[in-house]
Amino acid sequence: MKLPVSTEWVLHCATTLAQLNPGATASTTQLAQYYDLPAPYLAKQLKALVKAGVLAATTGPRGGFRLARPAASITLLQIVEAVDGTSPPYECREIRQQGRGALPPEECHRTCILAAKMAEAHEAWRSSLAGVTLADILATLPPAAPSRTRLRLSGTT
Amino acid sequence: MKLPVSTEWVLHCATTLAQLNPGATASTTQLAQYYDLPAPYLAKQLKALVKAGVLAATTGPRGGFRLARPAASITLLQIVEAVDGTSPPYECREIRQQGRGALPPEECHRTCILAAKMAEAHEAWRSSLAGVTLADILATLPPAAPSRTRLRLSGTT
Ligand code: FES
Ligand code: FES
Repeated sequence: MKLPVSTEWVLHCATTLAQLNPGATASTTQLAQYYDLPAPYLAKQLKALVKAGVLAATTGPRGGFRLARPAASITLLQIVEAVDGTSPPYECREIRQQGRGALPPEECHRTCILAAKMAEAHEAWRSSLAGVTLADILATLPPAAPSRTRLRLSGTT
Repeated sequence: MKLPVSTEWVLHCATTLAQLNPGATASTTQLAQYYDLPAPYLAKQLKALVKAGVLAATTGPRGGFRLARPAASITLLQIVEAVDGTSPPYECREIRQQGRGALPPEECHRTCILAAKMAEAHEAWRSSLAGVTLADILATLPPAAPSRTRLRLSGTT
């Protein structure tokens, strides 16, 4: 069970964008340089965040990305699921209904207890990540962090 | 983030073995026929369960598998981690320390807050599965299930 490597990228890029001044944006190039990431692949991930409603993209020569919503209403779950999708890691293929031990259909109206327990565990994971917003993350940063982030991101240092 | 298809197999096989009479065993062939699974690949997974201390293997012509411990002390987590491993799905590669935004090492003594939150979510998943034993699963089966399971598993019907 593995999350894509880009999960770390998008969590950090979203955290970085959450530190911009209102109305400001950052380009793919700026974000790629900030974290030394491959720009073309990062661009794909940023697009996925736009599609998921986490980021907004502005076009034009000075275009770039900003948060689509306030940091307090963007959760880590939304960011992770934007790049990894929402399908649960455990897949039940109803093996209880096949082979010599096959249960009759009338005993299989309810979800198999094993599938149900695996789904509960996935929900526990989801709730944990749904309980953390970008605002919560920002609140843990040192007070001087956002201005330093903005300075380094713009590349004007 | 995907668990291997064999996760469902081992959860069900362990549940099946938990329904045997004390001292009884079932072979790979019997389990494979019970769920219509490819025996060679199932054999590998059962070996992983033995290695993890979930199952015990007896050798010889009447050899087979049984639970290595009481059903009440085998958790779904142990079964799942036996086949999928214990490494967490999220991998932090310390991107906070690379690129133009690289933080100085002295600001990176603590685990990155994003990595910490991802680890918490994984722990929530683990606790959920660690809280369910095979005995809990058996307790949800209809009273007639274990004897039917034994009959069909032995293939003498
Ligand atoms: S039939 Fe799929 S988990 Fe039981
Ligand atoms: S440096 Fe890896 S999650 Fe922050």
